[in-house]
Amino acid sequence: MSSRAAARLARVAGHISASASSSSTTTSSSTSSTARRMAPTRKHKVAIIGSGNWGSAIAKILAENTTAHPHLFESEVRMWVFEEDYQLPSSHKGYDASKHSQPRKLSSLINELHENVKYLPNIALPPNVVADPSILSAVKDASLLIFNVPHQFVSKICDQIHGHIVPYARAVSCIKGVDVSSDGISLFSDVIGRKLGIYCGALSGANIANEVAEEKFCETTIAYDPPGTLTPCPEEFPVIDHSLWKHLFHRPYFHVSMIHDVAGTSLGGALKNVIAIGAGFVDGMGWGDNAKAAIMRVGILEMRKFGLMFFDSCKSETFTEESCGVADLITSCAGGRNHKCAKLSVEQGRPIEEIEAEVLNGQKLQGTLTAMEVNEFLKARGKEKEFPLMTAVHKILIREASVEDIPHLLD
Amino acid sequence: MSSRAAARLARVAGHISASASSSSTTTSSSTSSTARRMAPTRKHKVAIIGSGNWGSAIAKILAENTTAHPHLFESEVRMWVFEEDYQLPSSHKGYDASKHSQPRKLSSLINELHENVKYLPNIALPPNVVADPSILSAVKDASLLIFNVPHQFVSKICDQIHGHIVPYARAVSCIKGVDVSSDGISLFSDVIGRKLGIYCGALSGANIANEVAEEKFCETTIAYDPPGTLTPCPEEFPVIDHSLWKHLFHRPYFHVSMIHDVAGTSLGGALKNVIAIGAGFVDGMGWGDNAKAAIMRVGILEMRKFGLMFFDSCKSETFTEESCGVADLITSCAGGRNHKCAKLSVEQGRPIEEIEAEVLNGQKLQGTLTAMEVNEFLKARGKEKEFPLMTAVHKILIREASVEDIPHLLD
Repeated sequence: MSSRAAARLARVAGHISASASSSSTTTSSSTSSTARRMAPTRKHKVAIIGSGNWGSAIAKILAENTTAHPHLFESEVRMWVFEEDYQLPSSHKGYDASKHSQPRKLSSLINELHENVKYLPNIALPPNVVADPSILSAVKDASLLIFNVPHQFVSKICDQIHGHIVPYARAVSCIKGVDVSSDGISLFSDVIGRKLGIYCGALSGANIANEVAEEKFCETTIAYDPPGTLTPCPEEFPVIDHSLWKHLFHRPYFHVSMIHDVAGTSLGGALKNVIAIGAGFVDGMGWGDNAKAAIMRVGILEMRKFGLMFFDSCKSETFTEESCGVADLITSCAGGRNHKCAKLSVEQGRPIEEIEAEVLNGQKLQGTLTAMEVNEFLKARGKEKEFPLMTAVHKILIREASVEDIPHLLD
Repeated sequence: MSSRAAARLARVAGHISASASSSSTTTSSSTSSTARRMAPTRKHKVAIIGSGNWGSAIAKILAENTTAHPHLFESEVRMWVFEEDYQLPSSHKGYDASKHSQPRKLSSLINELHENVKYLPNIALPPNVVADPSILSAVKDASLLIFNVPHQFVSKICDQIHGHIVPYARAVSCIKGVDVSSDGISLFSDVIGRKLGIYCGALSGANIANEVAEEKFCETTIAYDPPGTLTPCPEEFPVIDHSLWKHLFHRPYFHVSMIHDVAGTSLGGALKNVIAIGAGFVDGMGWGDNAKAAIMRVGILEMRKFGLMFFDSCKSETFTEESCGVADLITSCAGGRNHKCAKLSVEQGRPIEEIEAEVLNGQKLQGTLTAMEVNEFLKARGKEKEFPLMTAVHKILIREASVEDIPHLLD
């Protein structure tokens, strides 16, 4: 089946289960079949592909929950580590000169110290997180795959593990955003699903890795809406549905809302960066909190309009009600780097590229890039005028409009 | 007709026009009748009742728009001023010792200097704002009445002008919030409409009087949904519909969205203060922007649930999409006094009443009062548990819960 046909099927499945349930946060309709199944005799094996700071924070959550729900999951959570040598600082509390005087393999340090000393230092990982430098070994027999790698590596990693995973595996991508170009928009979850011949949902929300790792309260959204045409998961396993994913991700400090809209969940994480630049511009003008709130409100509605216009499966409430929509936008406009650089650029009357170079130490702003990509996408479809805020942000960035024009451009 | 019956009619009218139009921001369905009417030969006379800082800022807008749309409105905007003596400071740029050495009537100073020197200093009012110390003279022959007085005076003022307004007048209340008690919830717009035997809509949004007066960009929401049973406005006048109100209030710096949901528009302005206290608590804990965004997201949904549960006419999108909902909440959680006092209370480990006394110079926090009133209202109906965030805020305020409990209470 073509990926397009699969996507269409997924949408139909999503619509059916969405209309059958009274709320988007109820468990998937497939739960209702549980009664007819025999009691599960096997447990799900969980693997996480990626071990950066977000990957490690998520691995911690997964391992806490496999321990909390031993009837559903095997305890061990394999975490694939892109192997590298790392010199443990002598100031580290676990430093032992007899073992750590020379650089060591990162995976071995993680397994010895139960801490990702390089990418998530000072956070204890549960001992059932097992770092594995072999990606094939990490994913072997795992029925639940969590993807958490930099987006530019997704495709290559899928090529590596293709054919080495169980055919009934299901996945969730924690990779933020989407790929936008004038050609179209591609979801990382779709790339993963298509390349591996499995289904992949998406997790996104108002989350910062370090805060989650420190167990500061926040919320997230997981979208999962599989088509009915997948290789079935054997009946010996617990059903892989919204309830199961919630058991795997929900913590007292990390509240999970399960929905069906994968495209909307992923889009929010990209488009919010464009809106955050607009909010930063307005903040830089000193127009006050109400002007900023107006930009954010218009931004939520433009994000929603974008989703509904270009993805049949998108739902309005993903943008207006979910953590991956309104909450993530609020956070990004409060203290995110896109907002900050845009604000400084107006305050200092300097191009945002200069601020970016100064503030981010060579890293690139996501928002300026996404603003350009989204504009190319909209322009190619003759839709620029229907998104006045995103278009205004782009025009200001390329110096075809000024921040003072924003109220007029939105009128 | 009883006010209850009138309200029911208003709701029905609202539902019909809402479902007949494709978007909540289109003009009212009554516009379609314009074609069948003769061309208007008379213009609307506008009066504003109230001249505090918000009243004066709104008077400025009204007067700018009566000038901008001379085919719809008479130029002069009468502004009722609660008369008092005021000593113009000698530092005022218009000070003239021969005229201002003694205290003068505020209304006379406003008309001489075209500035509300006491309540909105340093903002030029258009000369067609005419201050009037007689409320009966101010409202005489006015077909459009704008109410902008402290809420505790609404009832008495309506008693004063009852019988002295034209029977076909229509009104909009700019008074923020609602009256909540264990008995029920009353909308100021309903009180005005009932007492005067006319219809009154509501304006609310993420607005601060001084910022609006300084023409800093912001948005607002006007809800207007009259029943079909009113004394008709004579055909010589332009039709009083969404389009007309938008012409009266919309400015390049003050964007107006017209909707039908008066109850939702009014509720947002009250309930947001309870949520802002919750957000302040979480900020005080130092849990970061994502925890705060989670509280705000849950808050929007509880405000919406409250509206839908207790008002048939409420619409979901009033809370999730309008300035009077999500945007006003964002502003209140960013820099409002409820948020600020709650944050300081946690940071300093002191009761919020102490902070309130210290920071507000004897003024009272709206949010603590509303939290208590809303709790009484919910408790009387056995609905406390369905609003875990509002209930948590109340319990923390009365020391029956602590801020650390919030994630658990929302789980």
